[in-house]
Amino acid sequence: MTVLSEAVLADPVELTRALCDIPSVSRDEAAICDAVEAALKRLEHLTVERVGNTLVARTELGRGRRVMLAGHLDTVPVNDNFPTRTEGDVMWGLGTSDMKSGTALALWIAATVKEPRFDLSFAFYDCEEIEAVHNGLNKLSKSRPELLAADFAILLEPTYGLVEAGCQGTMRVRVTTRGKRAHSARSWKGENAIHRLGPVLERLDAYEAREVEVDGCVYREGLNAVFIGGGVAGNVIPDEGWVDVNFRFAPDRDEAAAEAHVREVFSGFDVEVSDTAPSCRPGLDRPEAAEFVAAAGGEFRAKLGWTDVARFATLGIPAVNFGPGDPNLAHKQDERVEIPRIRSCADALRAYVEAP
Amino acid sequence: MTVLSEAVLADPVELTRALCDIPSVSRDEAAICDAVEAALKRLEHLTVERVGNTLVARTELGRGRRVMLAGHLDTVPVNDNFPTRTEGDVMWGLGTSDMKSGTALALWIAATVKEPRFDLSFAFYDCEEIEAVHNGLNKLSKSRPELLAADFAILLEPTYGLVEAGCQGTMRVRVTTRGKRAHSARSWKGENAIHRLGPVLERLDAYEAREVEVDGCVYREGLNAVFIGGGVAGNVIPDEGWVDVNFRFAPDRDEAAAEAHVREVFSGFDVEVSDTAPSCRPGLDRPEAAEFVAAAGGEFRAKLGWTDVARFATLGIPAVNFGPGDPNLAHKQDERVEIPRIRSCADALRAYVEAP
Repeated sequence: MTVLSEAVLADPVELTRALCDIPSVSRDEAAICDAVEAALKRLEHLTVERVGNTLVARTELGRGRRVMLAGHLDTVPVNDNFPTRTEGDVMWGLGTSDMKSGTALALWIAATVKEPRFDLSFAFYDCEEIEAVHNGLNKLSKSRPELLAADFAILLEPTYGLVEAGCQGTMRVRVTTRGKRAHSARSWKGENAIHRLGPVLERLDAYEAREVEVDGCVYREGLNAVFIGGGVAGNVIPDEGWVDVNFRFAPDRDEAAAEAHVREVFSGFDVEVSDTAPSCRPGLDRPEAAEFVAAAGGEFRAKLGWTDVARFATLGIPAVNFGPGDPNLAHKQDERVEIPRIRSCADALRAYVEAP
Repeated sequence: MTVLSEAVLADPVELTRALCDIPSVSRDEAAICDAVEAALKRLEHLTVERVGNTLVARTELGRGRRVMLAGHLDTVPVNDNFPTRTEGDVMWGLGTSDMKSGTALALWIAATVKEPRFDLSFAFYDCEEIEAVHNGLNKLSKSRPELLAADFAILLEPTYGLVEAGCQGTMRVRVTTRGKRAHSARSWKGENAIHRLGPVLERLDAYEAREVEVDGCVYREGLNAVFIGGGVAGNVIPDEGWVDVNFRFAPDRDEAAAEAHVREVFSGFDVEVSDTAPSCRPGLDRPEAAEFVAAAGGEFRAKLGWTDVARFATLGIPAVNFGPGDPNLAHKQDERVEIPRIRSCADALRAYVEAP
């Protein structure tokens, strides 16, 4: 087993490198989880719980407020980019951006800040890069929500050092049209269901997506066809057509409001919701969040993608994304992180948890 | 091997039953072809050529005009409807309608009319029910067109005893739209190719198909989507979408004119022709054709589907469909033929080829 030494735990850059150099493609996180668990268990100011390959460590200082720092342990598959290599100020390799440089910051705070101004919780979890049903944070939010209790959460996903607040929700629906089969040589005896998709596409094309400001963050929605299909045979008038539509919605709508909106857009059509994930309000009105934005330099913006911050939202915990990685490099072969950005994010986090 | 006796050859109903009771699903026509070949070779007034499982028999009476009677030997797969059974005036079973009752009439004329008023040719061919590349008549029209030479052709496909003249052409095109991929959380960075299919479908829906009279037959065209597709992933703005469109066109358009029309309908879009089969003019202005219509009762109508008559058209031979089967029963489990209709069609054919 890789041992994370005190020297490594004391330096966020060395710790990033050490975590990246333990292979941990999704569903193969036992080794990295063992290494992190062993490191946490050496820290007497923390209680540690392990559920599968997910760890939660907590201070119990009776501070009255609690902040959660969270990061996933897994990576997408290796793509000729393991282990890390460093050139000047840049560390290259799988996981450097998404998100072991962020996860390392959480572990570094856990190891080095023994007297934080609020109680701290740390979550290190598995299977974030695959289907949500396997996601360790998702599973814990259902089986042991008390372990995730906090007043505010920081998810150390790559944001290039900017605070990205909340997240949009996402919903997929299938819009189906129906008709009547006939031989295409006698098409007037049938009713063409594919032709009936025309107005569905026209409504999508004409759709004007909102830009919404929530707690000072601007979210831009989107309603888009992502798949289309239909057809029986080359000589048959088709009796069914469908469009799969993805709605990305701002945090001023919950899932029910999002569904009602989509049904209104496609009124007169058969609409079925196939999957949905909630939005998350930025929560920057909370003092813990506002203090964090200040510590991180005062700038913030809306997170446009969907991230695990929404899992905290479902538990009523405001959450932001904040990490040194570049989100544009996530899942890329040439994934890398700027070492100075690891250090500046580390400084911001430390200032936040240590400030009087 | 089934032997088609003189008694069977002398009765179109018995001959229909005998042909139906030899299994001959497409690509398994050797046995039926052997039986028909042996019967033809016993007839001294005919020359017989066999190419694969396709037979051509001809009189050589120096009549100056020649009429072709043609029928395919194969059927679609068995569907719990083999062998035949007869109830009262109805013969049930695979092939009774499509088209062994018609093929039997050609063989019956071959066996029983030794002094026709024109020279006669007979074609019995394989693989009509599967891809055109296997079709025996199609292959012969390319490899041995001289065997098919005639002034007029009657294809004994099911028409319920009506003369169905010519046929519509059929063309399939793919209309493709393109866009730009992006993550669906940032959809404004992409261009949705599926949304761009909207105007294609609108044009299809608004299309007003022509009804065209050619040589006294009315053809009704049709332009229809038969397949639609597109999409990359549930969270990606798609960069390609496509609609497969089937154009059924009247015999006043050849394939080039049909293609030009489709390109005009979809002007501004990327249109690619994927396959095409020619139309066939009814050719009822030819004396051989007019005489046949008169012999068959004077009524005729346009054939709306595509049939092998178009193979004769490409050789410059006018052709009609005429057979006792009901086209609505083709390929159905409850396929059947009315025995009186076999006899009335037989009478009409015989009157036509024997009239002074």
